[in-house]
Amino acid sequence: MGIMDSKKMYRDHLGLDLSKWKELLDTHGVSADISKFTAHFEGQDFPNAVIIDCTANAEVSQMYYEWISKGIHIVTPNKKTNSGPFDQYKRVRELQRKSHIHYFYEATVGAGLPIISTLRSLVETGDKIVKVEGVFSGTLSYIFNSFNGEKPFSQIVTEAKAAGYTEPDPRDDLSGMDVARKVVILARECGLQLELDDIKIQSLVPKPLQGLNSAEDFLKELPNFDEEMESQRKDAEASGEVLRYVGVVDVKANEGRVELQRFPKSNAFAQLSGSDNLIAFTTSRYLRQPLIVRGPGAGAEVTAAGVFSDLLRVASYLGAPS
Amino acid sequence: MGIMDSKKMYRDHLGLDLSKWKELLDTHGVSADISKFTAHFEGQDFPNAVIIDCTANAEVSQMYYEWISKGIHIVTPNKKTNSGPFDQYKRVRELQRKSHIHYFYEATVGAGLPIISTLRSLVETGDKIVKVEGVFSGTLSYIFNSFNGEKPFSQIVTEAKAAGYTEPDPRDDLSGMDVARKVVILARECGLQLELDDIKIQSLVPKPLQGLNSAEDFLKELPNFDEEMESQRKDAEASGEVLRYVGVVDVKANEGRVELQRFPKSNAFAQLSGSDNLIAFTTSRYLRQPLIVRGPGAGAEVTAAGVFSDLLRVASYLGAPS
Ligand SMILES: NC(=O)c1ccc[n+]([C@@H]2O[C@H](COP(=O)([O-])OP(=O)(O)OC[C@H]3O[C@@H](n4cnc5c(N)ncnc54)[C@H](OP(=O)(O)O)[C@@H]3O)[C@@H](O)[C@H]2O)c1
Ligand SMILES: NC(=O)c1ccc[n+]([C@@H]2O[C@H](COP(=O)([O-])OP(=O)(O)OC[C@H]3O[C@@H](n4cnc5c(N)ncnc54)[C@H](OP(=O)(O)O)[C@@H]3O)[C@@H](O)[C@H]2O)c1
Repeated sequence: MGIMDSKKMYRDHLGLDLSKWKELLDTHGVSADISKFTAHFEGQDFPNAVIIDCTANAEVSQMYYEWISKGIHIVTPNKKTNSGPFDQYKRVRELQRKSHIHYFYEATVGAGLPIISTLRSLVETGDKIVKVEGVFSGTLSYIFNSFNGEKPFSQIVTEAKAAGYTEPDPRDDLSGMDVARKVVILARECGLQLELDDIKIQSLVPKPLQGLNSAEDFLKELPNFDEEMESQRKDAEASGEVLRYVGVVDVKANEGRVELQRFPKSNAFAQLSGSDNLIAFTTSRYLRQPLIVRGPGAGAEVTAAGVFSDLLRVASYLGAPS
Repeated sequence: MGIMDSKKMYRDHLGLDLSKWKELLDTHGVSADISKFTAHFEGQDFPNAVIIDCTANAEVSQMYYEWISKGIHIVTPNKKTNSGPFDQYKRVRELQRKSHIHYFYEATVGAGLPIISTLRSLVETGDKIVKVEGVFSGTLSYIFNSFNGEKPFSQIVTEAKAAGYTEPDPRDDLSGMDVARKVVILARECGLQLELDDIKIQSLVPKPLQGLNSAEDFLKELPNFDEEMESQRKDAEASGEVLRYVGVVDVKANEGRVELQRFPKSNAFAQLSGSDNLIAFTTSRYLRQPLIVRGPGAGAEVTAAGVFSDLLRVASYLGAPS
């Protein structure tokens, strides 16, 4: 019944024809105003309104408290609330639980893969989470799956950028910040009260290159650090192991980490290929052999599917037949 | 509010103390009678009753239609209805959908692993399933993961039985019937109208041994067929492949199969270890790299967790806060 981007919004109480959303927004849209947009869904006419936040915007995510207080359910792939300041996150969750409003965010981790729902079902049924460990970045999965000694590290990164696999500035992937956000989200799902600042992040951007102005400069300098990466790789290989860049929620230690780890070749992490994500849940029930989910964890289509699946869940929770 | 086994039942309108279920059933239980048991949950006093069928019994599963018609929700790990005659299955599903009654059966495939829910979410969000392929038996996973040339096939089976990993008669695992039931369940979830009889099953019990009276006789004769298995294994190995016993729902071909397949060592199926299950969903969205779920797929604790998770889902669908 309404759609909005950063510039325009279009609303229609009778519902809008989604196949024409772009045309409607371009031709009939008025200036975007999130308060007016919100007001459109308030009140008794729409007791079961859902807003889907498909931005990566922190200001939009700061509306969640207000939306929930107005009885509006939320579905989102936006990581900002769940990995943002803990007190704000807590405030949103407490209001949401108290008001029986639904808030689903499966696509914040692994896009369409069943990660959050699986973790939640383990926790709800009384399992004790020991560790959640994952390759949460398709880009970094691809880079380390390809880093087998044939090409220097910097070349793999450069080729990945050229193929459009990385962010415009590959440092945004290599910094580990996006992985850290996912670690925070999963840690909170496990009951830990962690902030993004608490996560121990081993950045793959060499210190001297963190201040460079452009992605081009960065890629020009990166080969100077190939030797260091290659020696880590060779060390691992000498023990029959490979390097993987993982995010870890270590429940016992009450901490989250993002780090380059070594895995024996028989381990599921070592056997990754392509740009797959892989998430392993080690719990009281799944102790010797973890529960593993693996597959593509990014891309518009699978992310949209994760969002849509959450929306259908809201519908089911509100009484739609199963 | 009620509990029943094949001999006794105990009911209490005020609810029963589950920590004492065994004592209550033994001391205060009356003769089991499924009609009387059902009557206990009927009517307006219990608008949201759920019966959990934890038997493997076909007669109990034949009560589903009646239960649903009386407004009782069902949760079960029992494969009998969903892999039984299609017309009966269809009758149950149609009534269930029409009456807005919930019927969940996650634990019928992979115990606590998110298999049915994942498949359902793909289908509901409009994905096109191409193929569902899986190692659905912990026993057969263990047997083929161990079949690496060190020991003859019959010895692995014999040791697996001694360790309690197989059914009392290992032929019940090796026949592929249990895998075939899971294939039928998943095929129907994909929209195929298959019967158990339609599944092409490659039994691992050699024809001449199918009629033997005892498990002991079977294990005594099995070594005579080691050479045949070993030559299949060697053939595969010569191409860098391994053998895995998989169930397949081939949606395009509109068929289900249970068969010994060869997989290259780089394939996730080849990398299985222990007695893990592994299920790969190949779909329009997950085409080049499938969505994979892996982990222990049997055992009382994880099965109970799958059942409990379904029960919580019923509660959520009936309005419990999320
Ligand atoms: N794509 C993936 O693979 C993937 C995977 C998992 C999760 N996610 C998450 O999904 C979300 C969307 O990702 P995306 O790839 O679709 O991002 P995107 O292409 O950058 O799209 C973001 C959209 O949000 C709109 N927007 C930004 N600020 C807004 C504001 N203040 N008010 C209203 N609309 C605003 C933008 O509008 P304009 O067009 O006007 O700028 C744009 O339409 C992000 O949170 C991302 O982290 C994405
Ligand atoms: N265990 C696993 O790893 C696993 C994994 C996935 C799915 N499942 C499924 O879960 C179900 C239970 O498995 P299980 O291992 O717990 O089996 P089980 O140990 O054989 O227990 C079956 C229970 O059902 C009761 N029962 C049998 N017929 C009955 C009847 N007509 N009325 C009432 N109760 C009856 C039995 O009662 P009595 O004690 O009186 O005989 C017994 O308590 C099966 O459908 C199985 O296929 C099990």
